[in-house]
Amino acid sequence: MEQVVDYLADERRKAEFDVEAMKIVWAGSKHDFDVSHRISRLVASDPVFSKDGKARLGRNEAFKNTLRKSAHAWKIIIELRLTEEEATKLRDFVDEPAPIDMHWDMFIPTIIGQGTEEQQKKWLPLAYKLQIIGCYAQTELGHGSNVQGLETTAKFDPKTDEFIINSPTLTSSKWWPGGLGRVSTHAVVHARLITDGQDHGVHGFIVQLRSLDDHSPLPGITVGDIGMKFGNGAYNTMDNGVLRLDHVRIPRNQMLMRVSEVTREGKFMQSDVPRQLVYGTMVNARQKIVSAASCALSRAVCVAMRYSAVRRQFGSQDGGLETQVIDYKTQQSRLFPLLATTYAYRFVGEWLKWLYKDVTQRLQSCDFSTLPEAHACTAGLKSLTTSTTADGIEECRKLCGGHGYLCSSGLPELFAFYVPACTYEGDNFVLLLQVARFLVKTVSQMGSGKKLFGTTAYIGRIEYLLQCNCDAQRAEDWIKPSMILEAFETRAARMSFACAQNISKMPSPEEEHVLIKRSRSGFTELSCDLVEAAVAHCQLLVVSKFKEKLQQNTPGKGVKEQLQLLFGIYALSLLHKHQGDFLSTGSITPRQASLVNDQLRSLYAQVRRNAIALVDAFNYTDHYLGSVLGRYDGNVYPNLYNEAWKDPLNDSVVPDGYREYIYPMLKQKLTNAKL
Amino acid sequence: MEQVVDYLADERRKAEFDVEAMKIVWAGSKHDFDVSHRISRLVASDPVFSKDGKARLGRNEAFKNTLRKSAHAWKIIIELRLTEEEATKLRDFVDEPAPIDMHWDMFIPTIIGQGTEEQQKKWLPLAYKLQIIGCYAQTELGHGSNVQGLETTAKFDPKTDEFIINSPTLTSSKWWPGGLGRVSTHAVVHARLITDGQDHGVHGFIVQLRSLDDHSPLPGITVGDIGMKFGNGAYNTMDNGVLRLDHVRIPRNQMLMRVSEVTREGKFMQSDVPRQLVYGTMVNARQKIVSAASCALSRAVCVAMRYSAVRRQFGSQDGGLETQVIDYKTQQSRLFPLLATTYAYRFVGEWLKWLYKDVTQRLQSCDFSTLPEAHACTAGLKSLTTSTTADGIEECRKLCGGHGYLCSSGLPELFAFYVPACTYEGDNFVLLLQVARFLVKTVSQMGSGKKLFGTTAYIGRIEYLLQCNCDAQRAEDWIKPSMILEAFETRAARMSFACAQNISKMPSPEEEHVLIKRSRSGFTELSCDLVEAAVAHCQLLVVSKFKEKLQQNTPGKGVKEQLQLLFGIYALSLLHKHQGDFLSTGSITPRQASLVNDQLRSLYAQVRRNAIALVDAFNYTDHYLGSVLGRYDGNVYPNLYNEAWKDPLNDSVVPDGYREYIYPMLKQKLTNAKL
Repeated sequence: MEQVVDYLADERRKAEFDVEAMKIVWAGSKHDFDVSHRISRLVASDPVFSKDGKARLGRNEAFKNTLRKSAHAWKIIIELRLTEEEATKLRDFVDEPAPIDMHWDMFIPTIIGQGTEEQQKKWLPLAYKLQIIGCYAQTELGHGSNVQGLETTAKFDPKTDEFIINSPTLTSSKWWPGGLGRVSTHAVVHARLITDGQDHGVHGFIVQLRSLDDHSPLPGITVGDIGMKFGNGAYNTMDNGVLRLDHVRIPRNQMLMRVSEVTREGKFMQSDVPRQLVYGTMVNARQKIVSAASCALSRAVCVAMRYSAVRRQFGSQDGGLETQVIDYKTQQSRLFPLLATTYAYRFVGEWLKWLYKDVTQRLQSCDFSTLPEAHACTAGLKSLTTSTTADGIEECRKLCGGHGYLCSSGLPELFAFYVPACTYEGDNFVLLLQVARFLVKTVSQMGSGKKLFGTTAYIGRIEYLLQCNCDAQRAEDWIKPSMILEAFETRAARMSFACAQNISKMPSPEEEHVLIKRSRSGFTELSCDLVEAAVAHCQLLVVSKFKEKLQQNTPGKGVKEQLQLLFGIYALSLLHKHQGDFLSTGSITPRQASLVNDQLRSLYAQVRRNAIALVDAFNYTDHYLGSVLGRYDGNVYPNLYNEAWKDPLNDSVVPDGYREYIYPMLKQKLTNAKL
Repeated sequence: MEQVVDYLADERRKAEFDVEAMKIVWAGSKHDFDVSHRISRLVASDPVFSKDGKARLGRNEAFKNTLRKSAHAWKIIIELRLTEEEATKLRDFVDEPAPIDMHWDMFIPTIIGQGTEEQQKKWLPLAYKLQIIGCYAQTELGHGSNVQGLETTAKFDPKTDEFIINSPTLTSSKWWPGGLGRVSTHAVVHARLITDGQDHGVHGFIVQLRSLDDHSPLPGITVGDIGMKFGNGAYNTMDNGVLRLDHVRIPRNQMLMRVSEVTREGKFMQSDVPRQLVYGTMVNARQKIVSAASCALSRAVCVAMRYSAVRRQFGSQDGGLETQVIDYKTQQSRLFPLLATTYAYRFVGEWLKWLYKDVTQRLQSCDFSTLPEAHACTAGLKSLTTSTTADGIEECRKLCGGHGYLCSSGLPELFAFYVPACTYEGDNFVLLLQVARFLVKTVSQMGSGKKLFGTTAYIGRIEYLLQCNCDAQRAEDWIKPSMILEAFETRAARMSFACAQNISKMPSPEEEHVLIKRSRSGFTELSCDLVEAAVAHCQLLVVSKFKEKLQQNTPGKGVKEQLQLLFGIYALSLLHKHQGDFLSTGSITPRQASLVNDQLRSLYAQVRRNAIALVDAFNYTDHYLGSVLGRYDGNVYPNLYNEAWKDPLNDSVVPDGYREYIYPMLKQKLTNAKL
């Protein structure tokens, strides 16, 4: 029998709070905790879902193995009659991008969001039973961010009551859609609708791609996989695809017609359903990405934290144990802010979920008033959280030293899997410019007497924020959440205000004195400042939502104290990192910036003894973490060692290629060798 | 015949300088240019060195293919009688980590640096002819940064005149050495020397690992590969290895005895050769890493720059062409500073090469005076340039949008290949602390009347720098190199000075008032501030060496003007990024920080029309870049498209796994399916 060890037991004993209570806080509710706990253990104990040797599989093997996991997951979902919530969790914990993910995450939601009731009645039952598998084909080889520039066309043919879907150019090839390359039978294809020679912009069309009998592509359809992507595993288990359509005909009723329709006569009509509904879907997709960010970052932090407590280096005195690397201040100053960030993102993610619900309810009663704000919040937070998470995962990998570079650490895979989040669903810089546009607009409406609410309420207090002074006089002053919040508000407000002012002062390139042109050219010219202002606003958002969380009633011994520590670390480490903004806007003084550093050192010392328990609170299984370095029991070295021998390179005593290449080199027989 | 296209011809015509002259500047000299040009074209035209399909190979295939390339390269080196310089270039341009790299880069230099003349006479001829292949086995599973903590032992046995090399624990297993896993016949093994029960610290020993007849491991030797690493290709073509030694006996004369020796009687003796020589080797290794950083970053910048000129998105008016993404200010503000950084690192790398030569000459005449400074410079610049380059490559990848995530972009591979440079040859944070220690020591010696020279000369002017004020009053003032340099000197001096002061004020934990203890505890406690001060010093170094380059005579129309632009962009973008330092130390005012931004915008506009020519000046072949997005001709889309179809997933019409997994899902036949 294997001996049970826990090399981290000492660390766990040090914790000053109720870890079980913190698990509930992290999960969001007792119910969420229970579901995640049950489903993650179900997946971890099932050999089909094993991750062993994943990094060593070739593309075809890896892909086939993912199909096997998908089929097995679906079987379990049916047999155990899992709820939708449980089924989603199951797919999450299988933790491998799979072709049918897009069926659940994009194909079905699009039909729900953009299909008429009749269309939903026809397609959804097929989709829910998996009698068809769908994907979402929007992006093209030549167009990503600029959706309105898509080139694929859908011409209505009134003679046959059909649309003719066509890829007129090479760059119009659909490119990137997950699930498209090898698996999907259907796709929602986005194409420019053309009736009677008139272009009505981009709409969605349900197109069957493959035969339901033998899976072969239908006539006029050229479809395949776009090739290897970043990482050993990561998205290489996904069949991101290319699709060309050569005058493919589909019935008229396969255009998604909830918002606009084409009649039998070929007349294009807008329905009375508000177009803003489409933005609701976008808000939902991005809100989910924010939740996923805290999840991905927390996995990396958990691995790096546990390994930092196991790893010892330097500082041995008289032959004793060396110092745990977690005790080095430089390690703490890089790792603890990321720990705090995972919690911060978790809470802002919860709030976004609420915001989405709120917006959806308002949309149903035709109240669009909060939509621009919701759109700016989700766009901005999607950008901020995914950029920080991608960088944070890589920082955690570096914090594991050399061993973090091994696939068995799990971190290279996590990084390669995660980074596309910075690009998909809106490039992060494009999104920040959208937020900036919203902010500048908000600031410039200030005079109009319009009342500002929600996340822009602070801009309503701009006169105060432009002249206020921060009161911090001692390091301890920087534990006051209200003082921290005001510093962030001051910085954000002043940066937005300065941008708005500078834009209005900017000459337009052709010296045309039309106000709108000037503002456009100024906006372009100052876009770097605008991006920074947008980041400041988004960081303020996270800080303010974390502060609100502190005001809630949080049961459990010591839990609230830990959240207060983490809040301080999150906000002050951010303040230090961006002190250029705070100082250049005069939001704080150099002396106050230095006090922030003193306070941070004290917070790091306080959180140190709780560090392992704070990552235990994520409640992740070793299967989910998929990291030898992040093992719960801290038994790192023997497992790293054993993992090494499984590499196929070690299958033979002498490597393949020895006779052909190594031997001739060693024996100076290269001249005759055939290479 | 293929039609010759050049989609970037317009961009090339815009250039305002002599690209051929800039190529010489980039290469360092006409001679360097000629060698690089000739060898890179030789490699690019040789089908054995083709990179086609690299990302798609499994581990064993990829490894074998690398052996083939190594043998072929060696054959060419012999047949064409290439010089050492040419041979090194050839290996560089083959551009694939290979097991025998460590033979040339570490094994041979170690024997030269640490072996006696007799040992060199015995081992070097074998090594130069490749009759043996060696590697460098230092790092262990449990010890990386702390070399003095290595556990492997080498006990002298006076009875047989042998050393017994042993791995006493699991964590003492050698772990990571490249070339060790599958290929090397010999290794320099680092082990604790023990004579007569006494431990003399870590020394190097030449140990034969494998039979020269059949390549099988010798008795007592357990050796293998440590498994998959980050990336699809990258270091997976290298056999980073694990080695356990079970009381392996080697003759006494296989201890490298230039610096210390063990006599026949077992007496341990220091030779009169200065131990500082070992630092010389380290300076050399790190100086090479700095050169390699500018090279790796320039490849990523070249790819992103060309693709940014090809890619168009948004901004089409009346159906015309969309805007090239290179014309967006946010793209420029991320990409142009990286372009400037490659040039800056190139020049500081040249200077380091000179510094190494100078130090070596001094060491030979027993002048150790400049060694601490040289050590601090190379440690600091290794850290700064590798961290910036790793982040910069990933930034370039993101600047290519979604397509940068494809292996065919070359960027994922480049990143995965490059990032370990942040960890090997000294973890970047450990190195910065070493620099900081040097700086604090330098500052605290100020009173002693010691004259400061070289890169610390500015600290000699600390009284001035502590009270000076920056004069910049208009944006244009920030083009003056001397004004920029002084701002960087002021910031760096003030940060080091503040650290030294704060350390001296720090109470030691046990309130022991022994000065040395206090300073140690203060150093530990303030290590985050120290790291930032070290970074400031290193950035100043790069800025000052770039400024010196501007003062040199540089022929070629417009070349000097471009270098001036790049200098401004490098220094001012850095100043903006770290404005928190500049403002908190009062080195500049908020108003001056804002002028920096104005000046940067103007510099970006000026460099824009030269951007493509400035990456053409790197003179890279398409083979070396290995990127569809970075093609010289800009013909991106058809090549991306064609590349996709080569993926093995596209080999069959219906994917492997369809019958077993997809069909049963679609037909609701999972219950009976065997998964």
